[in-house]
Amino acid sequence: MSAPKKVVLAYSGGLDTSIILKWLQTEYGCEVVTFTADLGQGEELEPAREKAIMLGIKPENIFIEDLREEFVRDYVNPMFRANTVYEGQYLLGTSIARPLISKRLVEIAEATGADAVAHGATGKGNDQVRFELACYALNPEIKVIAPWREWDLTSRTKLIDFAEKNQIPIARDKRGEAPFSVDANLLHTSSEGKVLEDPAEMAPDYVFQRTDNPVTAPDEPEYIEVTFDKGDAVAIDGKAVTPAEMLTKLNELGKKHGIGRLDFVENRFVGMKSRGIYETPGGTILLEAHRGIEQITLDSGAGHLKDSLMPRYAEIIYNGFWFSPEREMLQALIDKSQEHVTGTVRLQLFKGSVFCVGRWSDHSLYSEAHVTFEDDAGAYDQKDAAGFIQLNALRLKLLATRNRRLK
Amino acid sequence: MSAPKKVVLAYSGGLDTSIILKWLQTEYGCEVVTFTADLGQGEELEPAREKAIMLGIKPENIFIEDLREEFVRDYVNPMFRANTVYEGQYLLGTSIARPLISKRLVEIAEATGADAVAHGATGKGNDQVRFELACYALNPEIKVIAPWREWDLTSRTKLIDFAEKNQIPIARDKRGEAPFSVDANLLHTSSEGKVLEDPAEMAPDYVFQRTDNPVTAPDEPEYIEVTFDKGDAVAIDGKAVTPAEMLTKLNELGKKHGIGRLDFVENRFVGMKSRGIYETPGGTILLEAHRGIEQITLDSGAGHLKDSLMPRYAEIIYNGFWFSPEREMLQALIDKSQEHVTGTVRLQLFKGSVFCVGRWSDHSLYSEAHVTFEDDAGAYDQKDAAGFIQLNALRLKLLATRNRRLK
Amino acid sequence: MSAPKKVVLAYSGGLDTSIILKWLQTEYGCEVVTFTADLGQGEELEPAREKAIMLGIKPENIFIEDLREEFVRDYVNPMFRANTVYEGQYLLGTSIARPLISKRLVEIAEATGADAVAHGATGKGNDQVRFELACYALNPEIKVIAPWREWDLTSRTKLIDFAEKNQIPIARDKRGEAPFSVDANLLHTSSEGKVLEDPAEMAPDYVFQRTDNPVTAPDEPEYIEVTFDKGDAVAIDGKAVTPAEMLTKLNELGKKHGIGRLDFVENRFVGMKSRGIYETPGGTILLEAHRGIEQITLDSGAGHLKDSLMPRYAEIIYNGFWFSPEREMLQALIDKSQEHVTGTVRLQLFKGSVFCVGRWSDHSLYSEAHVTFEDDAGAYDQKDAAGFIQLNALRLKLLATRNRRLK
Amino acid sequence: MSAPKKVVLAYSGGLDTSIILKWLQTEYGCEVVTFTADLGQGEELEPAREKAIMLGIKPENIFIEDLREEFVRDYVNPMFRANTVYEGQYLLGTSIARPLISKRLVEIAEATGADAVAHGATGKGNDQVRFELACYALNPEIKVIAPWREWDLTSRTKLIDFAEKNQIPIARDKRGEAPFSVDANLLHTSSEGKVLEDPAEMAPDYVFQRTDNPVTAPDEPEYIEVTFDKGDAVAIDGKAVTPAEMLTKLNELGKKHGIGRLDFVENRFVGMKSRGIYETPGGTILLEAHRGIEQITLDSGAGHLKDSLMPRYAEIIYNGFWFSPEREMLQALIDKSQEHVTGTVRLQLFKGSVFCVGRWSDHSLYSEAHVTFEDDAGAYDQKDAAGFIQLNALRLKLLATRNRRLK
Repeated sequence: MSAPKKVVLAYSGGLDTSIILKWLQTEYGCEVVTFTADLGQGEELEPAREKAIMLGIKPENIFIEDLREEFVRDYVNPMFRANTVYEGQYLLGTSIARPLISKRLVEIAEATGADAVAHGATGKGNDQVRFELACYALNPEIKVIAPWREWDLTSRTKLIDFAEKNQIPIARDKRGEAPFSVDANLLHTSSEGKVLEDPAEMAPDYVFQRTDNPVTAPDEPEYIEVTFDKGDAVAIDGKAVTPAEMLTKLNELGKKHGIGRLDFVENRFVGMKSRGIYETPGGTILLEAHRGIEQITLDSGAGHLKDSLMPRYAEIIYNGFWFSPEREMLQALIDKSQEHVTGTVRLQLFKGSVFCVGRWSDHSLYSEAHVTFEDDAGAYDQKDAAGFIQLNALRLKLLATRNRRLK
Repeated sequence: MSAPKKVVLAYSGGLDTSIILKWLQTEYGCEVVTFTADLGQGEELEPAREKAIMLGIKPENIFIEDLREEFVRDYVNPMFRANTVYEGQYLLGTSIARPLISKRLVEIAEATGADAVAHGATGKGNDQVRFELACYALNPEIKVIAPWREWDLTSRTKLIDFAEKNQIPIARDKRGEAPFSVDANLLHTSSEGKVLEDPAEMAPDYVFQRTDNPVTAPDEPEYIEVTFDKGDAVAIDGKAVTPAEMLTKLNELGKKHGIGRLDFVENRFVGMKSRGIYETPGGTILLEAHRGIEQITLDSGAGHLKDSLMPRYAEIIYNGFWFSPEREMLQALIDKSQEHVTGTVRLQLFKGSVFCVGRWSDHSLYSEAHVTFEDDAGAYDQKDAAGFIQLNALRLKLLATRNRRLK
Repeated sequence: MSAPKKVVLAYSGGLDTSIILKWLQTEYGCEVVTFTADLGQGEELEPAREKAIMLGIKPENIFIEDLREEFVRDYVNPMFRANTVYEGQYLLGTSIARPLISKRLVEIAEATGADAVAHGATGKGNDQVRFELACYALNPEIKVIAPWREWDLTSRTKLIDFAEKNQIPIARDKRGEAPFSVDANLLHTSSEGKVLEDPAEMAPDYVFQRTDNPVTAPDEPEYIEVTFDKGDAVAIDGKAVTPAEMLTKLNELGKKHGIGRLDFVENRFVGMKSRGIYETPGGTILLEAHRGIEQITLDSGAGHLKDSLMPRYAEIIYNGFWFSPEREMLQALIDKSQEHVTGTVRLQLFKGSVFCVGRWSDHSLYSEAHVTFEDDAGAYDQKDAAGFIQLNALRLKLLATRNRRLK
Repeated sequence: MSAPKKVVLAYSGGLDTSIILKWLQTEYGCEVVTFTADLGQGEELEPAREKAIMLGIKPENIFIEDLREEFVRDYVNPMFRANTVYEGQYLLGTSIARPLISKRLVEIAEATGADAVAHGATGKGNDQVRFELACYALNPEIKVIAPWREWDLTSRTKLIDFAEKNQIPIARDKRGEAPFSVDANLLHTSSEGKVLEDPAEMAPDYVFQRTDNPVTAPDEPEYIEVTFDKGDAVAIDGKAVTPAEMLTKLNELGKKHGIGRLDFVENRFVGMKSRGIYETPGGTILLEAHRGIEQITLDSGAGHLKDSLMPRYAEIIYNGFWFSPEREMLQALIDKSQEHVTGTVRLQLFKGSVFCVGRWSDHSLYSEAHVTFEDDAGAYDQKDAAGFIQLNALRLKLLATRNRRLK
């Protein structure tokens, strides 16, 4: 790979990406463009601009964008249409943010004439894979620079030395090692590493930043109603909201009731296991809500097909293949199923839990006439069941007859 | 189908199966054998014997058996090895009990020379299918009688009339319609019908019989440890227990903490949707525990394969195909995966929730050496990630190149 | 079910459906509408009109339609996009024709004010299921009459008697039992029953009607080129043709070279096994051609996903669920994959076989630059493979380390 | 990776692996152990011994083994139980040989105290992945050396120079570039590269080495009978044979009739497409035979489950994960299905094709009593079909009613 001339860096404004910024300038002598996105991580973005300018970035090379609506509309919502969880439980809060960041990195590179992009993910994790696969899928010519895999700044001491030598300001609390590593966006906050590395040990209380402790959460359940249109949540308690507003509101409710904590050991795509603490307050509510509305609006053929493909869809997203034919094919299948996933659910929020306790819809397939224990006025002929069972049993009888014959 | 001469009836001792008993005697003039099983439904069985004798059943034709250990060991535990849930959430508490009852019905029929079996399931539900498929799979010659699909006792009034005419004692509270219908065993209690038929309406408090209300559950979390051996829970807080003892103990804990309530609309195999309230206290804890121990003992190849087949496995059980080649094939696959699912998890129980908060095992695949943020002493070479990504990206690059060329 | 007043009958003009026609008139006293479709079965349709008139059908109640183009365009082609085979080998020639016939039956019923439709499929086969599921899916109020399941004309003698009593003309060769039963359309001819009922016995030569004997087929291979656009065959040897023209032309070629014979024992949806002789000359060529063009235009992610879902898609079609959400969802996935399945294949036809021997496309993903044994000018860095392997091996190493530790 | 001290080399005795042998000695100064296996590639092995001795290998370090029986019994046969084909058509002849070679490499390393193994696969192909994943899965400490990824002998000229400088004898026909590359074992011969690199161009006749040209093959069909026991072919024309004898015999028959040629473009695991010519004469016959016996001995539940998992199983083998939990899990499922796959098929071999034309078995599930067009003496009640259809249709009716209501 020839040396990059102009690099778009995914820049948070924090110490680590500031070091990367400077390292790119010094190591490659290249022009740096910074890209800082608001995906709902809960940090001010303007300090990133000041810091970038201080590090010598030209104003026209500083891109700061609020991507929250696009994030929820085009990434989070499509994923939730599939009731997606990785390895049974994880709501993919980190995974789903990477494709959008990568897409903007590539677009900004193309707009600014940059030949490379750079990210701050390490060589041990999934994020490097997600960033790079997405970038290459969108621009096969782009160079991707992953400083953590390249440089020799392999200890905290060396990083701090580099920062000091290069006049990068160091916040007081960044001098030492953080007790664990954090990633956040509108969907979730993840914490991992250091004090969390022993999966036998309970995560200490101070790890949780995004959800109140269920023990101290309100002592009475709260009830809310979420309305869906074609698989996406569009209104809460009857009030229409935008995608990002919906997730923001559900996050507030989830935080208050201590909903969405997950202590998890997962299999990384790069082959090792890692332990993470995930907090996904709004997403956890959204998953239960979506399942609830599907219960009455999706028939079994559609539902079972979706369910059987969800693990694969989750794996594709987790592994970083959002921009791949197989993800797009599965999305087409999933989206097709959502045409009638329209209606409202009532949810109970209480001390760490969310339960669907009611659901209704003009699109409902639930037929009280058929299911009733009362007289059904001929909606269903119980005699049909005999034939249904006989033909379903036929192959089992033939098997049993064969097996008995051979004994 | 020629008339049965001797019928083994799945007999609870309650009013409905007593009416069936009498109806079989009068309708077919056949000898009746009663089979009453303790699957942990929480009812005394001896009254069933007295009632059977009173209804003219010969003592040698009365079979009363405690099947709790067999139920958990050979049905519940194998199912939980797959983390099985139907349609995302239901733990299959009713479905998993039917094969065992059917197996004993057929075995007793063969032992007593009966040519038929009978059950008390209605023509609208799944249970008729489960009973009959299982019976036919075990004995292709057996006749199965489903009185609810045959007789004309189509209203509560007619049933009560029949009972009175035939000197069947009627408990005071059985004269009127029950407000909903209940099924129970060691794994769960289900409630459905009548007051629960509108899926928009919240289930009234009095429906819940098996779990305390989370609101009034203890205000402090309780922590327990569950130990697994080859996928099955074998010890709690360090104390070895039998399969049924384990589930009984987890049920007590789950009840106390209000764990395992589910308000659910599901797709029946017979084609309609129905709404049920399920309470699965111990099972809900067991599922979380099993997932927790798999997190560190199962590698991603095994785990993802299992996960992708679980929905199908659940559907097979739900639909009543326990004794089918496909269930046995999947079981072979699942059991193969459990050879190292051995170790202990710590669980937090609190007001309706159960969370795995720690897990450890001699069989653990978690490698702190590999995942650590600290120096890993060469366990993992971050440079490898570059090649890994490049080759995973190759087809995406070729796709992007093709697609750009054609624009 | 109340008695039908007006029935649309799927009418071939042959003896059996003529008997049904008369039986409907006499049994139900209802008005009959006949629907006769040309799906390429190779029979004249006008005699059906004359016969219908002779049997008292009003001219405005006689519908005769050429559906060949619609059949191939909307049913056969979508199915071939998935390389669909049932149970490894069967090209679903009967299954795929039923939905279209059903669709027109329902549409004609709605246009003529009929409240019922009727078909001539027996109670043992798959076709009754396919017809009826399709009709109910398109019109949930329609009645479907299946005379073979209702009447008492249970032997050839009784049928002939009924025909004679009702002045239905009987062709000389229809008096006796046919030696086997035939179904034909543009995609295939199937033969089953009678002389074919012993699956150990080779099918006699006279069963084959649609393909020449490979032994006497031309002694030299013939080469053709088939061009695809978005997954559908659109030109042969450079000449654009319509969908039905394409299949007709491939049928001629396949017939000449003895291609597409299959002696098969399959599992019917109704639970039994049956043996059929299938001749699918054009379809067999089309399958090989489509696979060939996908080889260079589909990437592995898309191809493997499609392949893994094909068996399910085939089962859905075989079982009669063409008009179901799950088929439509899978179709959306499959169609999404075909956007670049455009290009040309060369095929060799010779004595019962068809082989793809060349393929090329502007949409090709094949990169000689990458795969070459020669110098690849840096297209591919072999060093990347080391990292790729190391990370793919990591979990296997961790497994092996664990397993050795425990020995 | 520290330098290896003693290396077991997969040694064919040919020029390339002789160069590797010498290169290992000179580059690493390490002791070399050679392992030469007979997997049915059709070459004498003793010349490899002489050549190894000539290149300075100690006699006790030369391992030459006939692995043909183990190859077919423990690798080919288990794979064929699943009717395994990769990407619809390829019988995995190369893939399935690699695990066995790797297993012996590791075992010999452990027996001789070697710390490394080496193979002659290039950095662009799948074989490097298969060798290395298998070795690491069997011994996580082993070093694997892949000279083609390391050395600078990047052209034919450099290789020949190296050979000449090191007194490695060069056969006259090995001086120039071979027109294509060949791999062979008892299951297949593959040819790829050079003259085959353009997938639009027909493969020249001289590429085919393992099968006679169908055009000149015998003009009359030949019929054979193959008998299976629990899924494996055990006798031909009534004569019991060992696994390797079976495949050898089928290879002779397939060769004679020109069976098993495949011109194929496949997706390599390393991300690119490649074109290969495969000749799998015996395997192609075996696949058709196995499908034929499964047709009557496997029920639909078992068959459809197997079919749906086969693509994944094939991918796992192709990608080199034979020694992985997921392959072993799938094998357990597949093997479970084969318990009754016992019986005999008759096959027709003719000019490039093989067709199953008859099959019979004591384990047959085919019931002429059920399927017959004649009177079935009550084996099957056609009325049952009505109920079967009604309940299968119920959800479709509910869907149609919903969709009509919303129009």
